[in-house]
Amino acid sequence: MSANPLKEFVVEMTRLSDRESDESRLFEQATPLMAALIARSDWLPEACAQPDPRFYRQYLLHCDPLQRFSLVSFVWGPGQQTPIHDHTTWGLIGVLEGAEHSQKYAEEGGVWRPQREEELLEPGAIDAVSPTIGDVHKVRNAWDNRTSISIHLYGGNIGQIDRHVFDPQSGRAKDFRSGYSLDTLPNIWS
Amino acid sequence: MSANPLKEFVVEMTRLSDRESDESRLFEQATPLMAALIARSDWLPEACAQPDPRFYRQYLLHCDPLQRFSLVSFVWGPGQQTPIHDHTTWGLIGVLEGAEHSQKYAEEGGVWRPQREEELLEPGAIDAVSPTIGDVHKVRNAWDNRTSISIHLYGGNIGQIDRHVFDPQSGRAKDFRSGYSLDTLPNIWS
Ligand SMILES: [Fe+3]
Ligand SMILES: [Fe+3]
Ligand SMILES: [Mg+2]
Repeated sequence: MSANPLKEFVVEMTRLSDRESDESRLFEQATPLMAALIARSDWLPEACAQPDPRFYRQYLLHCDPLQRFSLVSFVWGPGQQTPIHDHTTWGLIGVLEGAEHSQKYAEEGGVWRPQREEELLEPGAIDAVSPTIGDVHKVRNAWDNRTSISIHLYGGNIGQIDRHVFDPQSGRAKDFRSGYSLDTLPNIWS
Repeated sequence: MSANPLKEFVVEMTRLSDRESDESRLFEQATPLMAALIARSDWLPEACAQPDPRFYRQYLLHCDPLQRFSLVSFVWGPGQQTPIHDHTTWGLIGVLEGAEHSQKYAEEGGVWRPQREEELLEPGAIDAVSPTIGDVHKVRNAWDNRTSISIHLYGGNIGQIDRHVFDPQSGRAKDFRSGYSLDTLPNIWS
């Protein structure tokens, strides 16, 4: 058992980014790192596990200095959800606490339509997104009476990437950058 | 003028660490990066500029994920000083605000003796330490009525490195690790 799973993840993802840039190899080798990270939740600092009464929160845990990847804790208050959105880079989503529903979307004739069934992701589950495998989804807390938390790994500095939210009816896209919910990061080097 | 001198420093030091490991080349190429960083002080977050009434403080600003370098703000309350100490790795010290006195020491027959004159380092000044060029010194706030701040770059995760403080009379060494004064880092990726 690692003394500091977050630090170990950051070190291993840095080494992986130094040797691989191919998306499918990154998915393949980052998935077991994510599985180890979400195997327990005691490493997540309290400050990065706080829900907000209004919106889901996104706490940056680490950004690679060359912006090849970033790691974020998503904290969902009861019933909170995202709009339909894209990422424009690869991402791995691991559920830490609670549960999430994820619905993928695909464009058909200018309209965004649900693809397959909505998925229920419970602790330990890992989902993937990217422009090559399907990048558009909508996520919501599966619980209406408790907080859920997932850990997201992205192939860039996700808070600063130009992305889109989509109106399902009109198919219209709106630009956005998510930013981050805090101006501090956990100090994993103590 | 850079929008975020701290972020720029971190990116450039990461690139430098990827291509150089020789100490003298690191000194040569890190010095202009430090000079640019300490050319102004508005980028230093308030949380990393707070003195403590009892002790000087050490706020981690960034640690390289492979622990090849770290960057720390040292905040000196009025009259505060270090013991005589070593670093066991290379370091560059740039003065940001106020002023510091630095006194180098060398061992002579089991006793630590001051070397040359005590130096006065004012804003923009850069000092260097390392086991190869002289690693033992004592530093103090040159002011007894105001806070001074310096920015320190080290060739490792300085808070976790095994180091020593020295008793000048007996020459006796005591082991220490400095740690860091906060469990958060500035989020430079927003
Ligand atoms: Fe998403
Ligand atoms: Fe020192
Ligand atoms: Mg080195």
